[in-house]
Amino acid sequence: MRWYVVASILTILTSSQGILTTLSQSNGGYKYDYATVPFLAEVFKLIVSSVLLWRECQRSPSPKMTTDWRSVRLYPIPSIIYLIHNNVQFATLTYVDTSTYQIMGNLKIVTTGILFRLFLKRKLSNLQWMAIVLLAVGTTTSQVKGCGEASCESLFSSPIQGYMLGLLSACLSALAGVYTEFLMKKNNDSLYWQNIQLYTFGAIFNMAKLVLDDFRSGFEKGPWWQRLFNGYSITTWMVVLNLGSTGLLVSWLMKYADNIVKVYSTSMAMLLTMVLSVFLFNFKLTLQLFLGIIVCMMSLHMYFAPPSMLVDLPLASTKATPENLVQVSVDRRTDS
Amino acid sequence: MRWYVVASILTILTSSQGILTTLSQSNGGYKYDYATVPFLAEVFKLIVSSVLLWRECQRSPSPKMTTDWRSVRLYPIPSIIYLIHNNVQFATLTYVDTSTYQIMGNLKIVTTGILFRLFLKRKLSNLQWMAIVLLAVGTTTSQVKGCGEASCESLFSSPIQGYMLGLLSACLSALAGVYTEFLMKKNNDSLYWQNIQLYTFGAIFNMAKLVLDDFRSGFEKGPWWQRLFNGYSITTWMVVLNLGSTGLLVSWLMKYADNIVKVYSTSMAMLLTMVLSVFLFNFKLTLQLFLGIIVCMMSLHMYFAPPSMLVDLPLASTKATPENLVQVSVDRRTDS
Repeated sequence: MRWYVVASILTILTSSQGILTTLSQSNGGYKYDYATVPFLAEVFKLIVSSVLLWRECQRSPSPKMTTDWRSVRLYPIPSIIYLIHNNVQFATLTYVDTSTYQIMGNLKIVTTGILFRLFLKRKLSNLQWMAIVLLAVGTTTSQVKGCGEASCESLFSSPIQGYMLGLLSACLSALAGVYTEFLMKKNNDSLYWQNIQLYTFGAIFNMAKLVLDDFRSGFEKGPWWQRLFNGYSITTWMVVLNLGSTGLLVSWLMKYADNIVKVYSTSMAMLLTMVLSVFLFNFKLTLQLFLGIIVCMMSLHMYFAPPSMLVDLPLASTKATPENLVQVSVDRRTDS
Repeated sequence: MRWYVVASILTILTSSQGILTTLSQSNGGYKYDYATVPFLAEVFKLIVSSVLLWRECQRSPSPKMTTDWRSVRLYPIPSIIYLIHNNVQFATLTYVDTSTYQIMGNLKIVTTGILFRLFLKRKLSNLQWMAIVLLAVGTTTSQVKGCGEASCESLFSSPIQGYMLGLLSACLSALAGVYTEFLMKKNNDSLYWQNIQLYTFGAIFNMAKLVLDDFRSGFEKGPWWQRLFNGYSITTWMVVLNLGSTGLLVSWLMKYADNIVKVYSTSMAMLLTMVLSVFLFNFKLTLQLFLGIIVCMMSLHMYFAPPSMLVDLPLASTKATPENLVQVSVDRRTDS
């Protein structure tokens, strides 16, 4: 499969995730324990990856699997980063309101670009850097609060700690992505074997959260395994399957494409969700959403279009302005 | 002088124009007749151009001046287009409010690009087209009404005639610019001689407007020449000199640079005015102004930076992703 097909499916599924989650709510709240959703999604991904690995083992040559502890011990690290990230997120929200937090979340796009460059040593052209900044600006533009919406003027009025924590949160989120890409690409191990290691630790960390919640609430509602499916509807199951599927696709992209592709995919999903919300939930179509979409589309084209398509100036009819005569010869060589 | 120096001065003067005009108001209104300002600015430009042409005539070789009626008769056309434009603008404002009109005004950037391509036969690269669209999006973003501001929801709720007239207005404004560029570049005539023709007709058309206003008001306040300087302060004179100077610079740019340079210059001036207003008039710094400025800066870089600077991908360290190995060789040849 080509990466852009996977990225497009990821966009559609990520976008449905937001809509399904909204649909699974009743009266603005959840009937089920939301913490069970990521746990079940990890279990789902673990089952799918195990089946696929088993099928791969039936064929020859059998898949490459590194079982050395020195390799396996790296796989809980993304889960640990996400754990820290969740706590930083919680701390940030004590300083800033949710809409400011959402706006700051777009910094993740830029921090991903920076860590991608620093840790994975991937070079980007000037135009690609500009595209990354424009993607962050475009998604932020679409989220600008319009007239008459709540929480005006709060954006520049939070304490400095809030902004520092927001930046830290963006860095941690980017670090988790970049580290996962490093893990997936560091050897030729089977994707499914890598997934199994990743999701086993993911499931353990999510289970630990459920246990911790039980202790915090003093087992009021009984242990987590007894109330695991409480309040689950068809929509809740769809949320679980959807979250699991997006996880599998992200994993594929980390191995065969990269973090920037994932960032574009999820940013486009965010815009798609906003457009769908206009139709499904009668949200108001705002000028800023329209402008944000144009900026993001331009950014997408700038980042992924071959340079020759972007700067190749037609050489005919330059007589009017000889000073503009730019001869460009761009040669894209693909070694993959 | 290099075009970017002239363009930078134009940006600063255009930006001061908005601020000076605001300063020249008292209690939100004008003490003087605003219609006298463009007339006096035309007279100022005419005097300056005459002096400069006279100095040019003292030197040898004497400047080239086409006095053939077939050439001279083309010079009132920009004034006529502006006259039609002003009436269309008036008609548009009967359908849409001023903030919608202001937002639609950014369409002028795109229509200028299109007429520049169609009438002047100037080719632009894909990247330059994207830059032009981004400039329009960026200026529009900076003007998005924030929370708590008046006239919400009016943008998509005006009658269709309003939008059509707004589009016509954007086309006429672009046409005037493109036609002026055609006039200035069609032969090697002295810039000052071309200016004299342009501004003579400009002064005549502006005088006609003053006479018409007199007839409309039934000469209540006496004929225009008697009340020409009524209510003028130092600031009003600065507005006149500033408007005249920007006109001279635009004229220079039309001959030695082009309409796109002018569009960038005036767009940057609009943003600069908004930033200065935050400091001078205690306007609220909005997120959308900040985002709009980033988009416009990216657009500026995309349009004017040499393609080699934008797409030249460093060839080192591409081992991580051989499929991204893009070899680019861009060669900018300047024949001017």
